[in-house]
Amino acid sequence: MPANDFVVTPWEVTGKVDYEKLVERFGTQIIDDSLLERIRRHAGELHFMLRRGIFYSHRDLGGIMNEHEKGNEFVLYTGRGPSGSTHLGHLMPWIFTKYLQDSYGAKLLFQLTDDEKFLFNEAMSHEDTKRYAYENALDIIALGFDAKKTEIFLDTEYITPLYEIALRVAKRVTFSTAKAVFGFKNSTNIGSIFFTSIQSVPAFLESQRQGRGVPCLIPCAIDQDPHFRVTRDVASALGYPKPALIHCKFFPSLAGSDKMSASNTESSIFTTDAPEVAGDKIMNAFTGGGATVREQREKGRKPVECSIYQYYYYVFEEDDEKVAELSRKCKEGEMICGECKALLAERVKAFLRAHQRNREKAKDRLEEFMLRD
Amino acid sequence: MPANDFVVTPWEVTGKVDYEKLVERFGTQIIDDSLLERIRRHAGELHFMLRRGIFYSHRDLGGIMNEHEKGNEFVLYTGRGPSGSTHLGHLMPWIFTKYLQDSYGAKLLFQLTDDEKFLFNEAMSHEDTKRYAYENALDIIALGFDAKKTEIFLDTEYITPLYEIALRVAKRVTFSTAKAVFGFKNSTNIGSIFFTSIQSVPAFLESQRQGRGVPCLIPCAIDQDPHFRVTRDVASALGYPKPALIHCKFFPSLAGSDKMSASNTESSIFTTDAPEVAGDKIMNAFTGGGATVREQREKGRKPVECSIYQYYYYVFEEDDEKVAELSRKCKEGEMICGECKALLAERVKAFLRAHQRNREKAKDRLEEFMLRD
Repeated sequence: MPANDFVVTPWEVTGKVDYEKLVERFGTQIIDDSLLERIRRHAGELHFMLRRGIFYSHRDLGGIMNEHEKGNEFVLYTGRGPSGSTHLGHLMPWIFTKYLQDSYGAKLLFQLTDDEKFLFNEAMSHEDTKRYAYENALDIIALGFDAKKTEIFLDTEYITPLYEIALRVAKRVTFSTAKAVFGFKNSTNIGSIFFTSIQSVPAFLESQRQGRGVPCLIPCAIDQDPHFRVTRDVASALGYPKPALIHCKFFPSLAGSDKMSASNTESSIFTTDAPEVAGDKIMNAFTGGGATVREQREKGRKPVECSIYQYYYYVFEEDDEKVAELSRKCKEGEMICGECKALLAERVKAFLRAHQRNREKAKDRLEEFMLRD
Repeated sequence: MPANDFVVTPWEVTGKVDYEKLVERFGTQIIDDSLLERIRRHAGELHFMLRRGIFYSHRDLGGIMNEHEKGNEFVLYTGRGPSGSTHLGHLMPWIFTKYLQDSYGAKLLFQLTDDEKFLFNEAMSHEDTKRYAYENALDIIALGFDAKKTEIFLDTEYITPLYEIALRVAKRVTFSTAKAVFGFKNSTNIGSIFFTSIQSVPAFLESQRQGRGVPCLIPCAIDQDPHFRVTRDVASALGYPKPALIHCKFFPSLAGSDKMSASNTESSIFTTDAPEVAGDKIMNAFTGGGATVREQREKGRKPVECSIYQYYYYVFEEDDEKVAELSRKCKEGEMICGECKALLAERVKAFLRAHQRNREKAKDRLEEFMLRD
């Protein structure tokens, strides 16, 4: 891999991701102004993640808008691979999904792939991934999804309805295709090879239930797109509509890389971190600050290279003007890193205190949301 | 493939099978006299399929005998790929399995792989394989298995408990291994590649349920052995005992090939054939009879090459002396083909009349046997 290149698969993100180039590679489309305008009209306001191009790419989003404008329902589908505790980066697409649910009154299917994470992680037991799935479910519920319109399930607990559809997908996908799309090797285990069939199913589930084509929109990070290319390829042959997608960029790590990774606990803030611990992580975060306060006051900094600024930008400051102000102050040396971190730390701590209260309440609400055989 | 060679996989049997050579190729063992003697002692009498070497090969059968002699239970597991109606050839290993259940008081798990037959047959829908599975279940029940000790299930209907164990198997099996064992190609679909994991599960199911190692004996046709090599390979790592196997030869076709195939309706007798139709099929069967009655009376025939003789030998004449007598009469021209066929036709018709009555009764007994999530 050349030094300036990058790799994005559902299981690996390395290098500095060029998001424009990724759109070309994957063959998706940039969300253009006319699409944004339609969403603004439907939703009343444009979510800051759309305004800022955090959700920036799509497949067939126009088709979903058309359906909505004709008065037809569509279903939302997103998911989570439960390989660890939830960190703030995971919340980003879920917060956006909630905005879509609220704006369009859409039903949401939320898949927890406890099978996938068991199959793809040598060191992880199924007990681990199942436990994490339930931990993650609490965070999902805590975000305030509508219980009447949200169904959360673990693959292994809801497998009866999933398996039958997965078989029909699997019959249409050759090893060649799976190898080309996911880069599988001869050493890949046969469960991992099959798995994409299971990830396809929720895109078809509502159509299967209702016995008619129900359009589906999948909000997800762009690394999941390869799965849904497969899903879209087999859809027509199985008699289902092709699902549409809306893709986001990756939430940055406190260590400054492109995707916050749950495997490095110091560079991630978990929803279960004590607020003080989260605050300390922020205070210790990489910013590439100046050698001295004086130097920083004189030369300013580059907010786009700063993980703290990204936190504001991606999640913690919804107001575009305030983000611009932050950026200006940073560049001009008006606000130095310590100050900026302290402000973010307070904001994150307040968020965590509220989220953790909701998360506690979610423990009594699991049965309202969970779908089982 | 050289003219005298043969291929045996779970999905293909071609050429003239050399059963001794197959034991070498697969690395199984011939059932020897000391094992036969032990079974005779346990069971009271040796089933004619053992006396005649129809069930002729095994893996670790001695281990199962040891467990039994120590007073420990073992579980039986067999299965059926529901790709069509049941024919008489299918009944052969089931009749033997019933003998084992009766003799050892063993619980039986009977797997109907409606997923497999859907995945491996391009033209077959899942509705087809599910329908055949229930048709086949009636034949299984009609044979008189003990309802208290027999659990029959379709993979897709009992998938919740199966899937979790299948994932653990799948994680241990690489594509390389599956390719080497089953001859998969790049064009093989990803469901077919995964499937062997599902076929492994019933061998471990009773251990999983009881939370301790319960030995398992699998009676099956020898073409299924490759699946269980995989099962045995992963067993220890998953903490289960390796299943033992006892293998039979293939039931001959009326057309004279080595495995009765449900795809050629004229060369197979189905359990649902009207007795008269079955009789006609037998009367029209290939025997390689003499050009004239006179020639046959003078020169005799070779019973080992005759499908009618095989019917007696494999299923319809339990008495060894009578089989020997049939063979002698054939060789010496004392009984010619027409006579021999007519006798068999009567016997098969009588069997079908009784079986079909039991099969009707089985329709009301399905719930006693079927296992679902």
